[in-house]
Amino acid sequence: MSILVVGSVAFDTIKTPFGEARKVLGGSATYFSMAARIFSPVNLVAVVGRDFPSRYLDLFRKKGIDILGLKQAPGKTFYWEGEYGWDFSDPKTLTTDLNVFADFNPKIPESYKKSRYVFLANIDPVLQEKVLAQIKRPQLVASDTMNHWISSKPGQLLKLLKKVDIFFLNASEAKQLTSEANLVKAGKKILKSGPKVVVVKKGEHGVIMFSKNNIFTAPAYLLESVYDPTGAGDSFAGAFIGYLAKSGKINQAVLRKAVIYANVVATFTVEAFSIDRLAKVTISQVKQRLKKFKQYTAF
Amino acid sequence: MSILVVGSVAFDTIKTPFGEARKVLGGSATYFSMAARIFSPVNLVAVVGRDFPSRYLDLFRKKGIDILGLKQAPGKTFYWEGEYGWDFSDPKTLTTDLNVFADFNPKIPESYKKSRYVFLANIDPVLQEKVLAQIKRPQLVASDTMNHWISSKPGQLLKLLKKVDIFFLNASEAKQLTSEANLVKAGKKILKSGPKVVVVKKGEHGVIMFSKNNIFTAPAYLLESVYDPTGAGDSFAGAFIGYLAKSGKINQAVLRKAVIYANVVATFTVEAFSIDRLAKVTISQVKQRLKKFKQYTAF
Repeated sequence: MSILVVGSVAFDTIKTPFGEARKVLGGSATYFSMAARIFSPVNLVAVVGRDFPSRYLDLFRKKGIDILGLKQAPGKTFYWEGEYGWDFSDPKTLTTDLNVFADFNPKIPESYKKSRYVFLANIDPVLQEKVLAQIKRPQLVASDTMNHWISSKPGQLLKLLKKVDIFFLNASEAKQLTSEANLVKAGKKILKSGPKVVVVKKGEHGVIMFSKNNIFTAPAYLLESVYDPTGAGDSFAGAFIGYLAKSGKINQAVLRKAVIYANVVATFTVEAFSIDRLAKVTISQVKQRLKKFKQYTAF
Repeated sequence: MSILVVGSVAFDTIKTPFGEARKVLGGSATYFSMAARIFSPVNLVAVVGRDFPSRYLDLFRKKGIDILGLKQAPGKTFYWEGEYGWDFSDPKTLTTDLNVFADFNPKIPESYKKSRYVFLANIDPVLQEKVLAQIKRPQLVASDTMNHWISSKPGQLLKLLKKVDIFFLNASEAKQLTSEANLVKAGKKILKSGPKVVVVKKGEHGVIMFSKNNIFTAPAYLLESVYDPTGAGDSFAGAFIGYLAKSGKINQAVLRKAVIYANVVATFTVEAFSIDRLAKVTISQVKQRLKKFKQYTAF
């Protein structure tokens, strides 16, 4: 079952204590797609500039990611520069050049409009809603957001959440959105604002997933070598939705499996800069690591 | 099987965003004992002042905690005052009056010297070693420490670790002790310095346990109401060692179960000030919550 994703495709320059990567492929929709494609075909809607190299277009295609909806506009591609410290928590943003992304007004290609699985990556909630209005009867709508939209457009975000089935956000964003210091209280509160499932990502500390009568908590996979956490959250969401689309049905057991698969896929993302490792990972490598995760957590 | 614990019994004054408790019963050995007694009898070695109320002595006795080794010395009981913020991370220490604890030189009562399970709570590693020298052939030695000893007596601490089977410490302490930013690397490094098992406590983010050929990771139990995190780590260790002593054998499966029991017991500690909730908890209440924990984490 194809998944529609709408978000950013960007160039990133990333500094970590282990090194630096200059102007590499990034963006929320990129990471999402590269993770989701492990499980299901992906239809990508985003905008890039004239400077976007054709080798990346080829890479998307080669990975089963349809780029009919990837518009190339006059101007330069969205550019972000960030720096991580030793603890790999929130990076310091050094530069944000929106470029062609500033005028992003996603038009969904006709052939994508019947998409059953829709992921609204972290963009302006007003745009997220505009995207949704173009889709005919989606089976599942998932979305992500960021601190910026929570503080600048909380009303629009809450309006969108009424139409969202699965909502992904970070622990700090969950606290910010609800003004709750306790994550369990925060998660339950967000659940009341609309989504059937709320997935709170805690980075190296794992995940808590809230749904009507269930809470699920999982630690993160244990990694000795983290090189670049950029895209961990988006590839987590990609693997999560990819797994759901592949399963074709949604219940608590499938949702929990999706969390674990997503946990595991995100570990490949952070083991290298950009999508260098993620783009190469195979389903059997994912399953191998999943087996190890079970050994780490069984009691 | 009786457990010997050597550590502090204190008065705490604790401020949290939810309220304040003045001069309540605290100290590492207190929390440890009150948790361990759920599973096994405890022999307590500590020192208090003349101001220590007899009702607390009665409480210890009533809970199966032997206080032959609890010395009452001229002077005042160890007093600590701390304040927690909304995130309940490390508290700000407002006052530390060591009082009689300044001259603590633990003498192990003759009848305790054959103890098979020994817990050296967070005190000067030199004293921890002095205690150990008094014990005849213990089956299992566990210890805890704190940032203060890591920075002021790293050599003595590392010397002690060669004689310790199970070592408990916080995530930040593990990083400090090893100068490793990555917890998995830190845990493995500590393992090389002596202990057979290293338990890294991550507070609300759970636990990672390292042993020779195994790593185990568990999330924390999900709590909506945390009132006072004081003693969470010591009651975690208490339940852990208590469970091992009750089991009588130690293998990976038992160790993992000990982590889960410890996780659960610590939740009762933080639900009230001091030992108000912990002292009342029964094994059947613990088992009920353990069942819920399994539901939270199964996949």
